[in-house]
Amino acid sequence: MKQLFFLFSVFFSLSTFAQIDKVEPPFWWSDMHQENLQIMFYGKDISQHEVSAPKDVVIENVLKTENSNYIFVTIKTKDLPTGSYTFNFSKKGTKGFSKAYELKERREGSTIRKGFDASDAMYLIMPDRFANGNPDNDSNVNLTEKANRELPGGRHGGDLQGVINNLDYLEDLGVTALWSTPLLEDNDKAYSYHTYAQSDVYNIDPRYGSNEDYKKLAAEMHKRDMKLVMDYVTNHWGAEHWMIKDLPTYDWIHQFPGYANSNYRMSTQNDPNRSQIDWRYCVDGWFVSTMPDLNQSNPLVLNYLTQNAIWWIEYANLDGFRVDTYSFNDKDGIAKWTKAIMDEYPNFNIVGEVWMHDQAQISYWQKDSPIGAIQSYNSNLPSVMDFTLHDALMTVFDEENPGWDTGMIKVYENFVNDFLYADINNLLVFAGNHDTNRINGIYKSDLNKYKLVMTLVLTTHGIPQLYYGDEIGMVGNKEKLGDGDIRRDFPGGWIGDDNNAFTETGRNQDQEAYHAFTKKLLNYRKEKEVLHFGKLLQFLPENNVYVYFRYDENERVMVVINNNPEAQELELTRYAEGLDGITTGKEILSGSEISLDKTLKIEGKSSMVIELR
Amino acid sequence: MKQLFFLFSVFFSLSTFAQIDKVEPPFWWSDMHQENLQIMFYGKDISQHEVSAPKDVVIENVLKTENSNYIFVTIKTKDLPTGSYTFNFSKKGTKGFSKAYELKERREGSTIRKGFDASDAMYLIMPDRFANGNPDNDSNVNLTEKANRELPGGRHGGDLQGVINNLDYLEDLGVTALWSTPLLEDNDKAYSYHTYAQSDVYNIDPRYGSNEDYKKLAAEMHKRDMKLVMDYVTNHWGAEHWMIKDLPTYDWIHQFPGYANSNYRMSTQNDPNRSQIDWRYCVDGWFVSTMPDLNQSNPLVLNYLTQNAIWWIEYANLDGFRVDTYSFNDKDGIAKWTKAIMDEYPNFNIVGEVWMHDQAQISYWQKDSPIGAIQSYNSNLPSVMDFTLHDALMTVFDEENPGWDTGMIKVYENFVNDFLYADINNLLVFAGNHDTNRINGIYKSDLNKYKLVMTLVLTTHGIPQLYYGDEIGMVGNKEKLGDGDIRRDFPGGWIGDDNNAFTETGRNQDQEAYHAFTKKLLNYRKEKEVLHFGKLLQFLPENNVYVYFRYDENERVMVVINNNPEAQELELTRYAEGLDGITTGKEILSGSEISLDKTLKIEGKSSMVIELR
Repeated sequence: MKQLFFLFSVFFSLSTFAQIDKVEPPFWWSDMHQENLQIMFYGKDISQHEVSAPKDVVIENVLKTENSNYIFVTIKTKDLPTGSYTFNFSKKGTKGFSKAYELKERREGSTIRKGFDASDAMYLIMPDRFANGNPDNDSNVNLTEKANRELPGGRHGGDLQGVINNLDYLEDLGVTALWSTPLLEDNDKAYSYHTYAQSDVYNIDPRYGSNEDYKKLAAEMHKRDMKLVMDYVTNHWGAEHWMIKDLPTYDWIHQFPGYANSNYRMSTQNDPNRSQIDWRYCVDGWFVSTMPDLNQSNPLVLNYLTQNAIWWIEYANLDGFRVDTYSFNDKDGIAKWTKAIMDEYPNFNIVGEVWMHDQAQISYWQKDSPIGAIQSYNSNLPSVMDFTLHDALMTVFDEENPGWDTGMIKVYENFVNDFLYADINNLLVFAGNHDTNRINGIYKSDLNKYKLVMTLVLTTHGIPQLYYGDEIGMVGNKEKLGDGDIRRDFPGGWIGDDNNAFTETGRNQDQEAYHAFTKKLLNYRKEKEVLHFGKLLQFLPENNVYVYFRYDENERVMVVINNNPEAQELELTRYAEGLDGITTGKEILSGSEISLDKTLKIEGKSSMVIELR
Repeated sequence: MKQLFFLFSVFFSLSTFAQIDKVEPPFWWSDMHQENLQIMFYGKDISQHEVSAPKDVVIENVLKTENSNYIFVTIKTKDLPTGSYTFNFSKKGTKGFSKAYELKERREGSTIRKGFDASDAMYLIMPDRFANGNPDNDSNVNLTEKANRELPGGRHGGDLQGVINNLDYLEDLGVTALWSTPLLEDNDKAYSYHTYAQSDVYNIDPRYGSNEDYKKLAAEMHKRDMKLVMDYVTNHWGAEHWMIKDLPTYDWIHQFPGYANSNYRMSTQNDPNRSQIDWRYCVDGWFVSTMPDLNQSNPLVLNYLTQNAIWWIEYANLDGFRVDTYSFNDKDGIAKWTKAIMDEYPNFNIVGEVWMHDQAQISYWQKDSPIGAIQSYNSNLPSVMDFTLHDALMTVFDEENPGWDTGMIKVYENFVNDFLYADINNLLVFAGNHDTNRINGIYKSDLNKYKLVMTLVLTTHGIPQLYYGDEIGMVGNKEKLGDGDIRRDFPGGWIGDDNNAFTETGRNQDQEAYHAFTKKLLNYRKEKEVLHFGKLLQFLPENNVYVYFRYDENERVMVVINNNPEAQELELTRYAEGLDGITTGKEILSGSEISLDKTLKIEGKSSMVIELR
């Protein structure tokens, strides 16, 4: 920390005449559910001042910390109308100063905004690698790392305008929600393109655009009936964060003193036999040395993060959060943070990253989990990611001669434990993300295997999530070539790209084959309610063929996934419970009418999605 | 079934003059908790008779089935004194007949008998393969399969007298409980030595001895303060069972009609997405074609099994059951069976075989499971087997360069899910049984690895279970050479055996090394309460070294398992929470006094069990 404090003093000396350097949140709204607002005023020795508010404003408390550059003023906003309110700062023997603070009017229906759910299909992008809509902002004079498209781990220049430019592409593909990895300022010296080491959580990184651009993205998406999901990081900030360089309190972050790494063993969060030291290193240890670990058990920190999160929802008009490293947080702190947001927006949705390989452990972190209940824990987190299904998807389609626990049985067995989850419709179902090997890399660009994977992801229960570029067959190998290789630039996103996969004419034949399949299935799913919230009925795989049904009172869809390289003929009597007496259907992928009378033939390594009618 | 009925008629014609061929249970006891007794009378066309009892006896009901050879008479035994009660069978136009039925006096303290628990160490034998105490009973004129020690899957002649003869060996070893695989009559044509295809559940197979011999075994064990655990099979009988050949009701067993095999997918028992057909084939399908699957949802069957189980406890004075294929049973039926036994003997213990690989799934089957509770299911089964620990033990000591999820972390991670279980002290902990590869086969007779395995099994929580012969280094390979190879004869159990591992002088050097280690640790554990019911505190493995503590208010034992081939030096400050300020201890395996001041050195591939003092 010594070095950080030193760096700060250099920085601060340049701005010593400003009496208030930062106010956070920069503004707020009237008529919020949360009754109070804690405004942080930051300026050199500001805590030596007394603060007062206009007479309409009730100051609940004024909090000063060991660092004289901060004052936290909590006011009651409950019945305060919109407008500008001036706070005065006075100190004996000085002339004092003041600061106006604005309460804005909320957007209509803001409280009841509807988050993403299983009726959506979510598309994950890394904005630096998707499309460069504005080549002028690739580098920024105030930020250390400059664009360099030659470096796999460098900044490539993708930005918000690039995303906006390609919303029609996404809409046409059949995507209805967009999760972008973080966009807030990250002034790390290198690898800042992933943007998980943020240095200012109230501003979009100018290399992506402005706060206004982000708001525009949301607005453009809403025009298309699409939803915007922000990747929120509660666990850590970057070491370059301005507050890390001038910590409000020593315990704003976890110190050992200074840095110690997390052991990443999330099971210490609920292991009844854990040692305190292992638990501490898991939760309080830093994710990496450039990411100081935030202390959510400090109410000031927790409230800062809560208000910041609500600020972004309200400001940019968001439809959901994805929360990074959810299960590394202080578990009580993160539960309060999550609850505060859901209390503010009861129909919002938040999916947390709980990257574990045991369903009971993953379930633990979902709201109202029966597993969490064993330890009287409730995270309040509506949605978790189905990492165990992902584990299966990464290997199963290479398993052609299945044994007791290989082949399609792995997928089947993933769903037998559904009862451990509080809400299976709120699981994020995916074949890859920015941290995992690309599915088309794993399956060596075998289109047939991609089709099997995507049939599953798009027709089982939960919220399907695609990773950008999978739909045009993009590959990558994380183990061999590092993270940059699974985060290559989307072809066509940069001026001068030879190949433009954003357009049908620009796609090569292979890309078009991937794209056409994905588009067909996504667009079918989009309209098919039974695939959103219908029940699941599954049959034990035989000969590596997995058959399941999605059904509700009105509709039934039968899905057949033949992971056997040989064609198979299914005796349909076995599936009578799913067929429910229906003997004909339409196969969606081929468009053919199908008889379901006695047997059903399916080609090797292929899938069928049959709408029963 | 046609064939079975035909076989029966041949059989019955030989005994057509007997008016009552069987009465089951053959006798009962006065003053049992269970108020009623259902007596089954069996004889040709017996149901054409009216049955009456002496005036003291209240007949609750008389049940006749579609098979005229059975009458089930339920009487109230609640307040009936001991004695002989004569039942009369009358039919118009015949002279009728009668049968005396005895109610015996119970053993004192029978109700409050204490079952095995975590203070015990259980030893599993296959009686045919342990010791042949009586060569005269190796074959039996009435039973098909004759002894042939040349066949790996044949009967070798081991028997109850052989076990009795070697109780001193077991006591000296430090074992306190014995689980023998089944001993009741199994008249299968081949492979009857495993005795899971029973043909008469009220009689010990005469090739093992008599009912009296079994009672004697229990008595001899109790003299030594040891406990006898019976291997009970509720799921199926052998096709040669006399009642299977003359079924009381068509639905006494599950018929499809006749035989269909189980799919063995126990997860269908609680999968909310299961198809009914898969569930039915799991539970109602036969374990193998020679084992008709009993229908525990038929109250007659359930009651027959319940009374039979209680009969054996009361008759032989048993201390516990191990229940075969527990999770293949009708789940409501088996829960009732288990409850009835535990109601009769509240301090008894029953461990069920739930051979699954997911802790939530295993927990589901334990009494008061929080996982079972999700589906409002309570099996009432006090104890389940820790198969996930077994999974880890089979591979972990060959993993010397551990990654994220290999090496000692596998063992550590097994215990993080303890909170899923209702009672972790009632888990059976083991490194192998009669169905799994032998641990010394897996580890290629590496004594050091055996020591690491056994240190874990004997010092972690739960009820440790050893498999006969592991303690002298016996090997076997199931995949290559079949089940018979992991069930070889214990050397010294047969007259003329060259090698007699039952005695110190008879053991060769290798056997003695295995034996001495096992004996030392078992005898230490026997006296050490903190190893029975003490809490567990575990530390995240570093460099493949796993450290944990067992502790209670009075004592602390530190266990160090170094799975690294190199010696390791541990900084003890990291373990302060476990050491609790204590700086000296005695290492039990070597007998040395140890300083626990700053660091602790441990040799490669070795373990330490340190009593802190």
